[in-house]
Order: sequence, then structure tokens, then C-alpha cells
Amino acid sequence: MTTEQSPARTPERQAFYDHIAPANLAPLWERLHSLVTAEPHPAALPAIWHYREVRPHLIEAGGLITAEEATRRVLMLMNPGLGGEASITGSLFAGLQLILPGEIAPAHRHTQSALRFIIEGHGAYTAVDGERTLMEPGDFVITPSWTWHDHGNDTSEPMVWLDGLDVQLVNLLNASFAEGYPESTQPVSRPEGDSLARFGHNLLPVDWHPAVKTSPVFNYPYARSREALAILAKNGAPDPYHGHKLRYVNPATGESAMPTIGTFLQLLPAGFNTQPYRSTDGTVYVAIEGEGETRVGDTVLRWEPRDIFVVPSWLPHAHHAAREAVLFSFSDRPVQEKLGLWREARGNA
Amino acid sequence: MTTEQSPARTPERQAFYDHIAPANLAPLWERLHSLVTAEPHPAALPAIWHYREVRPHLIEAGGLITAEEATRRVLMLMNPGLGGEASITGSLFAGLQLILPGEIAPAHRHTQSALRFIIEGHGAYTAVDGERTLMEPGDFVITPSWTWHDHGNDTSEPMVWLDGLDVQLVNLLNASFAEGYPESTQPVSRPEGDSLARFGHNLLPVDWHPAVKTSPVFNYPYARSREALAILAKNGAPDPYHGHKLRYVNPATGESAMPTIGTFLQLLPAGFNTQPYRSTDGTVYVAIEGEGETRVGDTVLRWEPRDIFVVPSWLPHAHHAAREAVLFSFSDRPVQEKLGLWREARGNA
Amino acid sequence: MTTEQSPARTPERQAFYDHIAPANLAPLWERLHSLVTAEPHPAALPAIWHYREVRPHLIEAGGLITAEEATRRVLMLMNPGLGGEASITGSLFAGLQLILPGEIAPAHRHTQSALRFIIEGHGAYTAVDGERTLMEPGDFVITPSWTWHDHGNDTSEPMVWLDGLDVQLVNLLNASFAEGYPESTQPVSRPEGDSLARFGHNLLPVDWHPAVKTSPVFNYPYARSREALAILAKNGAPDPYHGHKLRYVNPATGESAMPTIGTFLQLLPAGFNTQPYRSTDGTVYVAIEGEGETRVGDTVLRWEPRDIFVVPSWLPHAHHAAREAVLFSFSDRPVQEKLGLWREARGNA
Amino acid sequence: MTTEQSPARTPERQAFYDHIAPANLAPLWERLHSLVTAEPHPAALPAIWHYREVRPHLIEAGGLITAEEATRRVLMLMNPGLGGEASITGSLFAGLQLILPGEIAPAHRHTQSALRFIIEGHGAYTAVDGERTLMEPGDFVITPSWTWHDHGNDTSEPMVWLDGLDVQLVNLLNASFAEGYPESTQPVSRPEGDSLARFGHNLLPVDWHPAVKTSPVFNYPYARSREALAILAKNGAPDPYHGHKLRYVNPATGESAMPTIGTFLQLLPAGFNTQPYRSTDGTVYVAIEGEGETRVGDTVLRWEPRDIFVVPSWLPHAHHAAREAVLFSFSDRPVQEKLGLWREARGNA
Repeated sequence: MTTEQSPARTPERQAFYDHIAPANLAPLWERLHSLVTAEPHPAALPAIWHYREVRPHLIEAGGLITAEEATRRVLMLMNPGLGGEASITGSLFAGLQLILPGEIAPAHRHTQSALRFIIEGHGAYTAVDGERTLMEPGDFVITPSWTWHDHGNDTSEPMVWLDGLDVQLVNLLNASFAEGYPESTQPVSRPEGDSLARFGHNLLPVDWHPAVKTSPVFNYPYARSREALAILAKNGAPDPYHGHKLRYVNPATGESAMPTIGTFLQLLPAGFNTQPYRSTDGTVYVAIEGEGETRVGDTVLRWEPRDIFVVPSWLPHAHHAAREAVLFSFSDRPVQEKLGLWREARGNA
Repeated sequence: MTTEQSPARTPERQAFYDHIAPANLAPLWERLHSLVTAEPHPAALPAIWHYREVRPHLIEAGGLITAEEATRRVLMLMNPGLGGEASITGSLFAGLQLILPGEIAPAHRHTQSALRFIIEGHGAYTAVDGERTLMEPGDFVITPSWTWHDHGNDTSEPMVWLDGLDVQLVNLLNASFAEGYPESTQPVSRPEGDSLARFGHNLLPVDWHPAVKTSPVFNYPYARSREALAILAKNGAPDPYHGHKLRYVNPATGESAMPTIGTFLQLLPAGFNTQPYRSTDGTVYVAIEGEGETRVGDTVLRWEPRDIFVVPSWLPHAHHAAREAVLFSFSDRPVQEKLGLWREARGNA
Repeated sequence: MTTEQSPARTPERQAFYDHIAPANLAPLWERLHSLVTAEPHPAALPAIWHYREVRPHLIEAGGLITAEEATRRVLMLMNPGLGGEASITGSLFAGLQLILPGEIAPAHRHTQSALRFIIEGHGAYTAVDGERTLMEPGDFVITPSWTWHDHGNDTSEPMVWLDGLDVQLVNLLNASFAEGYPESTQPVSRPEGDSLARFGHNLLPVDWHPAVKTSPVFNYPYARSREALAILAKNGAPDPYHGHKLRYVNPATGESAMPTIGTFLQLLPAGFNTQPYRSTDGTVYVAIEGEGETRVGDTVLRWEPRDIFVVPSWLPHAHHAAREAVLFSFSDRPVQEKLGLWREARGNA
Repeated sequence: MTTEQSPARTPERQAFYDHIAPANLAPLWERLHSLVTAEPHPAALPAIWHYREVRPHLIEAGGLITAEEATRRVLMLMNPGLGGEASITGSLFAGLQLILPGEIAPAHRHTQSALRFIIEGHGAYTAVDGERTLMEPGDFVITPSWTWHDHGNDTSEPMVWLDGLDVQLVNLLNASFAEGYPESTQPVSRPEGDSLARFGHNLLPVDWHPAVKTSPVFNYPYARSREALAILAKNGAPDPYHGHKLRYVNPATGESAMPTIGTFLQLLPAGFNTQPYRSTDGTVYVAIEGEGETRVGDTVLRWEPRDIFVVPSWLPHAHHAAREAVLFSFSDRPVQEKLGLWREARGNA
């Protein structure tokens, strides 16, 4: 079925197609090969955003609009293959958010889940359900679906992070809800660090049961995650396809920290080349440490710290680390796994 | 956030937007209100396909192309709000498939999961993984993701069923794989009815564990499902919002029979009016028995047996059964539930 | 560790043991080999109760005490290896219950889960949570933990069934609760067959979620289970160790019908010999149809319909069916599986 | 049913009982009230072992037998109500293990799961599946079911820990397997701390899936757990029944760290009195810090650091902390929860 062409469109058939169109009918056989493809053909393209080039634009945006007026002052990373859709992969949104000293991004909530991966700055906060967490570069912060959240920068320097959201997925499902909070910030009801202490030490409150699918830990500090990678790198050999790669988990279930977005952290030793690999989850990477390049099909993306790049679904790719490198990444892998759709292939096969 | 308009597009800002566009950057604040909406705004519209009107087109298609040439001779039900997308709701595909006496729809497999809900004819078969099941009106048949399947009609009458597939969802995730089988039909390795006996009697083989997320029962015969409804209708009062409504389950897990598509069967007593209800899963209905109407917002859809209609996400709707009616329906509800996105509201609130 | 003897008990050591005993202390090394054994050494012995021999005793009991006075008129099947413990295996209780025409076994509830496997009689009822089910030979009926249940015989003939309960397990865990109902029978609030229609047709009520771990189907009729076995026996070859063997499942989860007791039904073709097999779950069998024998170690148990026999943990055993035979069986296998303890071995190894 | 006495034992009935006994039959109604009790009646008694009293016995044992000869030099904590059974509660074993400088407790494995809660000494090791962990007071160490494990003390001081095992449970199920390792110690294949780095930082290896039900983290260091408690104690009010109480979890599933034994850590502020509470899981406590007393029914158990005490099933109890106290505890709660048997009651009701 998949290698053949569509059936010939004879005049008789075309007349039939025209005839039935007003009845909201159309022939599948004219579209089958594009709807059900032999392999994924993502429209998304490999692409990279060099932070040294994007940062001036962000700062310029900081002068053109306030965080308050913008609600969220974010420059979206527009995948060049997606024709103006607000997407970096088929299902996911990514953008760089800037919040200047003294600014507040006002409280709201929405069904879209969001991750914040901290790029620049020290000590601005994200508040989720009454608890503020202070953010440092490399921290992975979650604002779960339908939780009130706001951001504020009480420091003296700009704060920038990468936003990742499941916008296209929620919209395909027609499941978007959002509302603003009556005030610009929500009240603080728990001290900083409470969630991490309560849920993040391989212990859970004795009578607590998770009510939602998102991790109760909403800041995974880089210091702690990096320490795990350092020990693994010291203790054993890297995986040929991934180096030393860990996935962030919800400690209440062992599943992904967010139900719709998988998040990962990997260390590539200096000089290491990963073997070609592909999977069906188009993936967004952030380089945190080191420098190197990622070959995606015929495209070579050279990265250094704070750069962001995307590898679309099913494109074979391999990483090379010129210096010891750490990459954060995220994708819709948990969605695909829950639905029985995720696939990977190792090597050039 | 959600009630406000986008910020003013000053000339200075517009210049900035134009300037950053080549860097694959764009301002979120121009798009925020359309990306993250206060409530679902599905593009899909309520619509109905009356079988008495569609059937002649199907029969005409039967004269224009063979099942073999078409691979699948299906007239797609095109939601009039979706601008030519091959979709009946945002995430789902529906089409009516005709297979004439003596025809074969050749064997293939794909990652898209498909349901077949039988509309007309008696005794054509669907083969899945070496077992053929004979189909009768009202039967709910599954061809699971990545299983070889073919259809054939050895009877003397046309056979028509409704196809439901997760095409848009799989494509958003860029996870489509498909391949044709070397022959037009796969060999039969197990007798008819084997799966139902093995998995469908509230017993499971002692050492069997499910390897996939789809039900091992691949034909849920209408006779059996209808019997359950009849007993419930005799035994108790209908639910005000749903009448007597059951969901098809995977007996190995208690979850939905298909991982991406939820399927339901409900009985509405003669004269019964359901109360207004809405949920985030746009739903496709097939009237099996009885007649009545469904009010969706301001649209009234009058249905009789074999008619197919669609209620988009979050539109309040209510059913009225003029005579005792049975409706089959399907939606992406299990996807939304797994991702923590599904919502419903009862009444006009 | 496991092949050695305990350390020598020198006078000095013995004096120490005597010295510390009043402090509620004792040396593990004196007991280690009996507490942690190299293999299971069940005290239970293989044994059989021939119904033709037990029935007269049951009938005699019927003349000595009423069901009402006895609460439950049950003759316990006492494993001859267990020294008067009310057990048929290490963890499970079995007994034969007789209820005469016109009698009632009064309503009560307890945390112990009970199964009833019907041996003789037609049409007496078990009531569970407001629904009565009529019992026929071969039916597998559950009275779940902490549900009100009573039994009554409105027919003209004696009714006998096998009771299986998790008594020893609940007692080891010190988790027994029980209470009597104010009346001898509970009111009937749902028609006969309601649960089976609602939960047993591979469909579940659309908004129902299981609140307990026991199956919502509380009578698995033999007619239906036997039909599944008949089809399997017609369709394929028997498993060398089990014949055609199915396990009863909770349709809401795919797990065992009862959380503490696994239940199974198997067909052995006429003349079939199973290969030697053993597992850690001591198992109680009921012969329903056919005749044959089961060799357990050096013991041969010859059975015919209605006979009950027990195979203790880890004893190799093999069945021979002289005529086509159907065996019901139950064990604590789901407990062992949930705790990661269950093991099996095939063949004589 | 539960408040009544057993039926009268008339001579005629007694004759019948005597008559059927050789047929391995006995009347349930004579035993029903002791088998199925209205409430738990644990034979176990509240008891305490003061470390200052037990330690001299342990040291004396150190002079009477080597760790090697004893296999495990453990003084069992014998519940005074259990008549010489090697049990501290109905289902669980506890003992104090001593390993002297230079000694090895030789490698073996068994299906019983064991916990080690460190009481005294610094830096002896437990090796599990090729990794050694160094032990400090307050650490909770697991040797999972059927994993090779050995212990060694390369330090200059005695090391003492509390062993907790599911011995009675495994024996009730007749599921004990054990074997010795050919050498006294197993080879070390992974560096110290590898498991904690790999599994204990709210991250998991990207392609790892748990193969067993026990946590892959096998040492939960006290320093880390205590830090969590300290933050909770600073941040909020204690629960009236538990103070600040956390349960150790398997980060791969969110379930208990061990499938058969639940483990807990709780902080009681100085001067705090918990409200009366009871649950069906008989519980063993170790006082780590502080001092206080626990009233169990009419018994008062006064504890100080390193003391061990037991609260049997369903006995109301309340803690009083004279000074800020930390208690470790373990019970069979996860078993009861998996089987649907666990109950608790708050207050004196």
C-alpha cells in the first residue's frame, strides 16, 4: 500500500469528487498516502538558536514591552519548517522568556503544562500553588497544568529561561482552558524549598496520594542533577547512543515529571561521539555546558552553552562533544509511550 | 490574562517583529490569546451524515474504483469546519468503507489504530494477526496499531462500516509508519472466535501478559453488548446526562479497548431527554436503533438508524430519543485522561 | 549458609542463651536453617476428600445443627499435615458448606475474602451488597472483603458448595474484622444478574471507577466459563503443563478476581498427561467433570467429579485425565505475585 | 455472628466431631469465633528493648561465636506474647546484628527481604549485587529478595544494626528459597554510591525499567532523610497523630521501598503529644534521636536513642516526646494495602 501512488484521477472520478464535496464527503484514496505515511515525514526542520544572537533581540524586546503588558514576554522559537505555526516541533512550543529586574509576570493558570529551563540570571522566582522557588541556571522548573503561577524578578539582573509547553497537543485535543488571577501575584503560603523537602528526598508524606499526574517536585535544581551525572561519568562507560543520560521522574510514580513532556539530562564526555540514533519524538535540546555539534541528517548544528536546537522526529542524528558537555532536552516521548506509538532505531538502519 | 486583548502593535513593535522573523523568532504576546484560550474553541462544527443520503454516493464509488485499487474504498466524513482536513473532529478521522461481494481490501499495517463499526451487511470478515472475524451490524471491531489486517467480502451483499482512526493525533506526533503485506490477504492461523473465547469471558490465559495497549478482544459483538444494555435498562433508572451508558474495555487492564480512542454504547429510553452536558472530547456518534435528535448548541441534528453525527469539544448538547435508541460513540477521551486534560460539565453551567 | 548445620551448642553458649531469654532475646544462628530454608518445606501434605465419602457426613451435620445456629454450617477440610490448624494449605482455609431447603445462613461481613465454588444443588442464592445471585454447579461466586453477605436456599434440595477463604493470611496480618447484620437477611436492592450485565460483558459503566480490589462481577457462571474452555480445546493444542488453563480476572483491572486468592479453570483432554510442574502456591483443586489422577511427589490422588484435593507448595505434580476433565483451582498466587515471591518450575528439574 | 458464643457442644455433636476427624474434617462452627474475630486480637504484646541493656549481651555474643560461624550473628527480638516464635510482630522478624572489626558475614541470598537500620558504628559495609555501601547510624539499607549480599567491618569498632525481615510472611506462603555464595564475599563491580546517584536524585536512567519490586536505591542515608524532616519541621505544623512523618519510597514506582515491609521516619517536636491512633499493621520503632514515651493501651514504653519497641496491631497508642525526637519504624503495611486489608482509626473511637 505504502509504496504505490494514489489511483489515477480520471475525469469521471473527479466529477464524482466534486459532486460529493458539498455533502462533506471526500475519497480517502486520494489522500491515503499523505495521511498514513510509511515513515514519519515531519515538516519541522533541524534548527538552532544561538543564544549570543538571540539575546540582543530579547533585550530589545525588554525595551519594547513590559512583562506585565505582554503577560509573558516571550520570543517564540519558530521552527522554520512549520510555516509560521507557533511550534518548535509538531506538538511542542518553545520560547525564551525575559523578566527584568523589578518585573512581574502576572499570575494565571491554564491547562497547558509548562517547563522552564533556566538560561541566565540568578534568583528570580517562579511561584506555583503558593510556593516560590528561586531559579538558577540549569534548574528545571515545572508549572503544572491548571496551577496558578507567576514569576517575579527581585534581583538586579535580567533573568532568561526557556519555556516549553504542550500547546499544539492541547489544541489538537481542543482542551485549552485559561484564566487570570485577580492579583498580579498569588499569596505565598509555603516556604521556599518545601516541596523539594517533602517530595524530593526519596520519601513521601505518609498519607499523601498524588491527585494529579505532574510531579509534586516543581524545581529540580541543576546542582543536584549535575551531581548525579558527575558520579555516573566517573563510575562507568557512556552509552554509545546517549552518553550518560537520565530522565527526570515524578517521585510519586516513577513516570515522567510532566505527563505530556519528557525531560532529560545527559553528559557527553570530552571527545565523545554518539552513534547515529533516531526516535519518533522530535526533541528540543539546550546546551548547558561544553561545546560540540550535532549532525542531523545532512545538517550540522554547532552548539555552545545556552544554545537551543531541535531534532525533528525520526531524523538520524549523532552528537559530538568537543569538550565535556551537558545537554538538557525535552520531547513528547511520554505521550507517545502512553499511546503505544513511540519508536526508536539505533545505528544507521 | 485571558480576557484581555493582545498588546497594541505599534510601528516600533512591528518593525521589531519584522526584524526578528528571519531569526525564526516571533513575539508570543501577539498570539497568546489564540494559543492559550479561556475555553476550547474547536474549529470543528456539529454535523450529521444521513446514511440514506450517503449510501448512494458509496454505491456510486463502488462503480468508480475497486477496493483493491483504492486500497481502502472509503468516503471520508469531512467536518465542514475543518477546511478540508481529513478529520471529523480535531484529532480523529472518520469514513465510511464499502466492500462489495467478492472484493478484498488488501492486507497492510500501520501505527494508526482503527475501529470499524459495522453499519450494513452480514458476514464479511476483518482479519487481524491471523484470525478472521465475521462482522454483523453493530459489531465494534478493532485493528490495533501495527497489526496486519485485511478485509474481505465473501457474501452476496455490500458491506459497509464506519472507520474511526487516530490519524491527526499520530500525525501531530509524527509517528506514522505503514507497510503493505506481500500478499493481498494474510494466512489464517486461528479459528474464528478464538480471541473472544480466550480473552472475552472474564478469564485470561494463565500465563499470558499483554504486550500491547490494545484489547486482545478485537470484535465486541453487538448481540452481547446490546444484551448488557437491555438488562441495565430493565433494572434501573437512566443517568440524567447519559441514559444507560457503558464504555468498551480492554479486559486485560480495565482501560479503554483502544489506547487512543474511547468507545461507548448507550441506550436512551423512548421519550427520554438527557440533560445538557459537555466534555472536552469531541465525539462521533452512530445511531444504531431508534430515532431522535441531538441539540448541540443551537444546532439540531435529527437522526435515525445508521446516521453518523459529530459533537465537537465543549459544546453543550442534549439527546432526545423519540423511540428507544441505542447510540455508539467514539472520541479521544482516553488520550485526554492519560494526559490529565479531560474535563466535563453537567448542566448549563 | 543453607547446606550447613547450626553451630554447635556448647555449654557456654547454652548458658548464654538461657541468660538472655528473659530479656526476650534469642540467638538467630540456632534457628536460621529452619526460618530461612533452601527450598519451601510446607508442612501441608497432599490430600484428597472424595465427595462420595464426605457427603454423608455433611448430611449428618445437617441433622445435628441448623445453618442459623452454626452461622455457617461448614465442615472444614483439615490438611492432615497441619496439626489441627483450620487450613488446607499454609495460608488458605477450605470447607464444605451445606444449606438445606428453607434455611438461611445469616448476613454478616468480615475482612476475610471468600469464594464459593458450587458443588451440588440448583438455585440457592448468595446475596452480596443488595444483589442475590442464584447458584449452579461450577459457578464461582465471590463474597468480597467487608461486604454484607447471606445465603439462602428456597429450593427443595440441599445445596453444597466449597468455601475458600484467606483466613490464615488475614490472621497472620492481624487484620480480622467481622460483624453481624441486624437481620438474618439483607434487603435486595438490585435484580439478579445486574452485576454481570453491568461489569461482565467487556464493558463498564462510563463513570464508574473501582473502589475496591475485588471484581465487581461476583458470580462467574460455569456455563460461560465452560464455553470458553470448549472453544479453546477445539481450536488448539493444550499446554504441556496445564492443558487449557484460564485464570478468572477482575474486568476492571485485569488482575485476579480476588486480591488474595487466585482462581483458575482448566480443561484436560481425554487421555492427556501434563508434564511435571511445581510452583510456590499451594493449590486446592475441585474436579468438576471427568476423572483422572494427580501424582504429587509419590502420592497418587484419584479423582472424580466433586472431589477436592490439595497440592502443597513446591511439590512436583502431574495430572492425568482418563476422560476429558475440567478442574477448578485456587491458591494464594496473586499474593505471592504482588510481593515478588511467586516461583514455578517446569519439568523435573 | 460475632458477639455470639459457639454452639453448644452436645454429646451427640461431640461424637460426630470425633467420627469425622479421621476423615480430615472438623466443624467450622466450633472455631468460627477464633478464626474470624470482630477485631484484631494480636498475640504480640507491646515491648521494648533498651539498647543499654541489650548491648552487653550482644558484645558477649561477640565473644561466643564469630560472624562467620553464625552466618549472621543476630540476637532475635522475641515478642513476649508470641511463645517463642522468632517474631517481633505476627508477620515480621527483628534482630540486632553485631559485626566486629575484621569480620565478614558471608555472602548468601534468600527470598526474604531484609532491612538494616544502623544503630552503632561507622563505615562497615553491606554489599548488594556488586556494590558496597558504607553504613552510618540512621541509614536505612535494603538487601532485596534474592540478591546476593554480604557484610564486612573493615573499621576498628563494632558495628550494630537492626535487621527486619518478612520471615513469617514468607513462611506462611511457603516461599522460602536460600543459597550460599561460593566465596565469603562477592566481587565488587560498581563503586560506592553508584545506585544512589543513578536512582536517587529524582532522575532515572533513560532506558532502565524496574525488573523487581524493591527500590533500586539500597541505602537511604540518614543525613539526607533527616534534612527533609528538619525542613518540614521548620515549615509547618505537625500532624496531630504522626508529627512530621514520611515514608521511604521506591523512586521507580512511588510505592514502598520494599514490597513486603513499609518503612517510615518521623519527627516529634520537643514536648509534642500525638493523639491516640491505631492501625492494623503491628509496627516496630527505633528511637534515633531524643527521648520520650509511647503509651500502648495501658503499657508505657519509655525510650531513648537506640531503643527498639513494638506496637502490635490495632492497639491504640500515643507518643510523647520529652525532647525533639526522631523515630524510624517498619511494618507490613504495604502488604495489607496491596491486599485491601489495611485499616486505621484516629482518636479513641
